[in-house]
Amino acid sequence: MGLVKHSFAVNRRALLATLAALPASSITPLASAALAQAPGGVLPSWNEGAAKQAILDFVRLTTDRSSPSYVDPAERIAVFDQDGTLWVEHPMYTQVVYCLERVPAVVEKKPELKDIAPFKTVLSGNREEIARLSLRDLEEILAATLTGMSVEEFNADAKRWLQTAKHPRWGRPYTELVYQPMLEVLRYLRDNDFKTYIVTGGGQDFVRVYSQQVYGIPPEQVVGTAGATTFGYDKDGKPFLTKEPKLLLNDDKAGKPEGIHLMIGRRPYAAFGNSTGDREMLEWTGAGPGARLKMLLLHDDAAREYAYGPAQGLHDSKVGTFTQGLYDEAKQKGWTMISMKNDWNEVFPPATVGRTTR
Amino acid sequence: MGLVKHSFAVNRRALLATLAALPASSITPLASAALAQAPGGVLPSWNEGAAKQAILDFVRLTTDRSSPSYVDPAERIAVFDQDGTLWVEHPMYTQVVYCLERVPAVVEKKPELKDIAPFKTVLSGNREEIARLSLRDLEEILAATLTGMSVEEFNADAKRWLQTAKHPRWGRPYTELVYQPMLEVLRYLRDNDFKTYIVTGGGQDFVRVYSQQVYGIPPEQVVGTAGATTFGYDKDGKPFLTKEPKLLLNDDKAGKPEGIHLMIGRRPYAAFGNSTGDREMLEWTGAGPGARLKMLLLHDDAAREYAYGPAQGLHDSKVGTFTQGLYDEAKQKGWTMISMKNDWNEVFPPATVGRTTR
Repeated sequence: MGLVKHSFAVNRRALLATLAALPASSITPLASAALAQAPGGVLPSWNEGAAKQAILDFVRLTTDRSSPSYVDPAERIAVFDQDGTLWVEHPMYTQVVYCLERVPAVVEKKPELKDIAPFKTVLSGNREEIARLSLRDLEEILAATLTGMSVEEFNADAKRWLQTAKHPRWGRPYTELVYQPMLEVLRYLRDNDFKTYIVTGGGQDFVRVYSQQVYGIPPEQVVGTAGATTFGYDKDGKPFLTKEPKLLLNDDKAGKPEGIHLMIGRRPYAAFGNSTGDREMLEWTGAGPGARLKMLLLHDDAAREYAYGPAQGLHDSKVGTFTQGLYDEAKQKGWTMISMKNDWNEVFPPATVGRTTR
Repeated sequence: MGLVKHSFAVNRRALLATLAALPASSITPLASAALAQAPGGVLPSWNEGAAKQAILDFVRLTTDRSSPSYVDPAERIAVFDQDGTLWVEHPMYTQVVYCLERVPAVVEKKPELKDIAPFKTVLSGNREEIARLSLRDLEEILAATLTGMSVEEFNADAKRWLQTAKHPRWGRPYTELVYQPMLEVLRYLRDNDFKTYIVTGGGQDFVRVYSQQVYGIPPEQVVGTAGATTFGYDKDGKPFLTKEPKLLLNDDKAGKPEGIHLMIGRRPYAAFGNSTGDREMLEWTGAGPGARLKMLLLHDDAAREYAYGPAQGLHDSKVGTFTQGLYDEAKQKGWTMISMKNDWNEVFPPATVGRTTR
């Protein structure tokens, strides 16, 4: 977990190649069979099968007082990756879209950036050139668009953006492109006294803006990539916090268990992920005694969402890297794979007519 | 909030001078009138007065649905400094005592340190020499005793120490020298749906070891000075986290609101402190709209606890620095002062015969 000065690390997954994919994903509303009435009982959007059964078994084992794996309610912690686990991460991480779209506002305040790469490139709108930006360029864009303002200013801007921005494929707000079956798991675990946390490589402050509304997860239960803030006073002596381009926690890969220790201080009993960035979090969860739930979502449903990772050959993935090593380890350790195609009878919540925010 | 490599900052209060005070504080059990039966009602250890009334008023204003200052239960956050606010900080911060007493174990593992300052000095037991150690020396001792082991090893060792270590004045475990009136405030706020947090300059991992048992505050609601950890694997491939001598958060002064943002992500509605290290936390709390409770505990009770800070002249304090500036600001902004002597009819919980741990 290096401390990168004046930059935001974007090393968690390869981002750039995905930019090239954008033109292909124009608005193609889903002719949705997902609106079918959900069957009753818990986890109604889950088909019967090993994945659903693993969740039910885990909750029974950890909450039944007569079980040898019974867990005290105070100890019940469940952690969820966000991008690709709770919501759509293709063709690009939502937060990166936000940062790119924020560039004009940044340039307006600092006109000297207008003719300087990489800002000039982003302003050009030329997607091929944008796709060729280096990781260093992207880090510069993230630093410029996510820092330098007060936390209140950032929150207000991100909130405003989320209310109007729409996913290119479905034309729905990003915050509606959450996985209905995962919302049911979150609720089911909370109903059984689990505290649910997001543990994301995405920006902690960004996710906190909508986590309560979208997932029922309060800001204090969001662990993410986090930068420092600096306390200061405005001209009237009123204190405020400024977001600084100094990385405190790169919450990906090994940074996930490190972030869990920093922010929660307990080992989780359940962990959900979908990519190599979640590997150490699942290992850390699984290394504790008693019943531990380790689940990996496979994106194998091109019709309803996307097919990448193991579904498309392990070397073909762009966002949401899923290596052969992760696949082999998951098999060997008996982690439970979730097939989006086979295990879910719905993918997204029903669209609400006229609703643009959640 | 600088990132100090290979050192733990001990800059939050002057520690060294307090070491000299140790010999004077031999075991002098308190002939305790504090065992008197508590009167009924909420906050029974609080005498009627402005301080108790401020707490009652604040809870009424923020929880009565008809109040213009009503606060949604999800937003109800209350933060508490620990040293000198929830438990005794004189004559020395408990964690510093722990670190000094851990030196022999560290030297046993690394014999080469035996003849090297500052470890040699600590091993000598010569309190006058120990009192002359520089801040840099103390930082070296903290780094050597709080890092380099796995988080499990640290937790087990700190827990073991807390079970046997006793305060020199009362001969009771440190974890029993918590303020009964503050335990009542914690409970009263929780009964009114406030989430209670510790926000301490002390080590986050250290306080988490006992926070649930002692204060009813779970580890995930402890914000403290925090170092990095590094994820790795043992020879059997089992993952573990190593505590590193790299500071992520110096949770004192301006670091307190910064830590609150990092770990909680919301502005508190109530904040309790007792020293200059809590000033920015109270300012940050008070700068929000609506009803906000800002309280400062004054140590003015030499008979039952200690008298320092404003009670003894502002320049006379050693642990728990309380500057004239803080005093003036508190007066000017109407922060509520708690007089230990006048506002509390009990200071500590009744001693439990034969109980050495809580």
